[in-house]
Amino acid sequence: MEQDLQAPATGDLRHDPVGLHRVLEPAGVLPQAAWRLDTRHELWPDEVRVRVERLNLDAASYRQLERTHEGDGDAVRAAVLEIVAQRGKMQNPETGSGGMLVGTVEEVGPESPLGLRAGDRIATLVSLTLTPLVIEDFLAGWDGRSEQVPTDGYAILFGRSIAARIPDDLPAELSLAVMDVCGAPALTARVVRQYPPEAVVVVIGGAGKSGSLSLVAAREAGAGTTVGVVPTESEADLLRVAGLADHVLVADARDPVALSQAVHSVDPERAHVTVVCVDVPGCEGGAVLSTRDGGTIVFFSMATSFSAAALGAEGLAADVTMLVGNGYAPGHADYALGLLRGSDGVRKLFERRL
Amino acid sequence: MEQDLQAPATGDLRHDPVGLHRVLEPAGVLPQAAWRLDTRHELWPDEVRVRVERLNLDAASYRQLERTHEGDGDAVRAAVLEIVAQRGKMQNPETGSGGMLVGTVEEVGPESPLGLRAGDRIATLVSLTLTPLVIEDFLAGWDGRSEQVPTDGYAILFGRSIAARIPDDLPAELSLAVMDVCGAPALTARVVRQYPPEAVVVVIGGAGKSGSLSLVAAREAGAGTTVGVVPTESEADLLRVAGLADHVLVADARDPVALSQAVHSVDPERAHVTVVCVDVPGCEGGAVLSTRDGGTIVFFSMATSFSAAALGAEGLAADVTMLVGNGYAPGHADYALGLLRGSDGVRKLFERRL
Repeated sequence: MEQDLQAPATGDLRHDPVGLHRVLEPAGVLPQAAWRLDTRHELWPDEVRVRVERLNLDAASYRQLERTHEGDGDAVRAAVLEIVAQRGKMQNPETGSGGMLVGTVEEVGPESPLGLRAGDRIATLVSLTLTPLVIEDFLAGWDGRSEQVPTDGYAILFGRSIAARIPDDLPAELSLAVMDVCGAPALTARVVRQYPPEAVVVVIGGAGKSGSLSLVAAREAGAGTTVGVVPTESEADLLRVAGLADHVLVADARDPVALSQAVHSVDPERAHVTVVCVDVPGCEGGAVLSTRDGGTIVFFSMATSFSAAALGAEGLAADVTMLVGNGYAPGHADYALGLLRGSDGVRKLFERRL
Repeated sequence: MEQDLQAPATGDLRHDPVGLHRVLEPAGVLPQAAWRLDTRHELWPDEVRVRVERLNLDAASYRQLERTHEGDGDAVRAAVLEIVAQRGKMQNPETGSGGMLVGTVEEVGPESPLGLRAGDRIATLVSLTLTPLVIEDFLAGWDGRSEQVPTDGYAILFGRSIAARIPDDLPAELSLAVMDVCGAPALTARVVRQYPPEAVVVVIGGAGKSGSLSLVAAREAGAGTTVGVVPTESEADLLRVAGLADHVLVADARDPVALSQAVHSVDPERAHVTVVCVDVPGCEGGAVLSTRDGGTIVFFSMATSFSAAALGAEGLAADVTMLVGNGYAPGHADYALGLLRGSDGVRKLFERRL
């Protein structure tokens, strides 16, 4: 017992703001690239330990698990447990992606720069792919049939991690879902502001979480025309009712010809800014063909192929700027939560998906 | 004989500037994404047929073949022949990448917008991954031990393809090598111009082809400090003698800690612009750690992992802009050839690699 009250023995070891000291193998890589992380319970001086109550799995990761196990929830649960036990983090080996978590701050190291206090209810805004994680309840409360995973366990935040306090005025689950995709609206707004006010902004996957927030962000940032592309008539109806886009198009984003023809019907010059928010492979060519010369494509889907994007634009002689969607921008969580508070349409789309 | 003089029977079929009419399987995808292209000899009205004299395989593709066949040139040659015969194009199924070609215009369709004439000696500036190609000499003149593949055969250019006439004042092989990577200096210059004159530009792989041109482009575009990163002391000596960078650093780009510490030694604030030009996987984290908040990373390596870049930046809370290196920009070939003509150092580095 007395040992538990002492400063942890690890406190003297060299620690690092990005968590290099928690990497077990291979040595010398960043935590995100590591195969396995050190999940020890004691904190290094700049770390924070969080009691986890819920994981929010990345959509691409969850779908891959669901497909592999043919929708068998027990098998999906066992797979997640095995990944976390083996790797010390929830990073799907197939998709490389993770997700995020919500929990309560349990202990704050004396040198932590994050400004958190024990008892704060937070969501992590860095990926689960680099967050040391221990599951202590065998995921007994999860049926394996949803990306939202109730659990009990702990996770470790590093000096340079990002965590946001969960606001009091919104249900936690809703805040978590917003924070999970909050990089998309922040970057979309930043890009749209670089274009003149008449800019045409096309969001592929406009009825989804990152897509609907990106549509609202584009409008808030001054886009002249916003276009939401969705795969089905039922999603189109949802998006029309939500009122988030000036035009709603139904097209298969994997079909470059169909997609670009649909965009062409709104503006023959095509988009100034195209935002890809659908987690299916093969959307690179359609995005390139839908964007005018001098335009920008923002890829937020983890299913994006780097070489397909690079070679696709070159092969089409397309003078477009292509951005890797960075999930981080300063103030991104507050910005996205503000968009949701200000838009009943977005809020209803999110609530449908919880 | 008379048939050869008639308009080809295919001339009546619907054709498309990006080559959709040449896609055999799967139907409806762009030529670059296709498994197999139609290599028929007759031209659609907006096409151009080129008599091929040389292929220049993409470095990542060639290395993969070399590794797989353990340096056995005959086996590499057989593998390339098989890929081209199966797919109707040279696209390595493993790396997804291709390369480019040089040849002489053989026939120009009446509706071609490319401005080429029969007899023009050209290089294609669109990837081999989307160029219908037939090899007619079994690659008899190639030993399988170099990326440069002398051959005889034909290739098809579409309405929206890009081809550049090979200049008279430079050896063809040299021009080809420059054109192969000419997207990198063009985009580097464009990005550097967005930063103030004191900008620090780090080029990872600075002694390579795209890297050395990018260093010269950065300086030409007004960078304050240019830094070339190379993996070995011998490459460092080459780059120092060439005089292309203000600082030459030796570091393993796959080791984020070592790389960022090296960059830190030049400027503790790290780079405004980081250009990744090395064809090895795992450089994303180091590039992110080497770039300051508000900076830009340009990924030119086909070995870049989209998810590693996206999640890496998020995980490090790095407010950086990350660009997918687009191989096309207007005027990119002329710009790169001009840089080479103006820099003995670049020219010598290129000539060493021919």
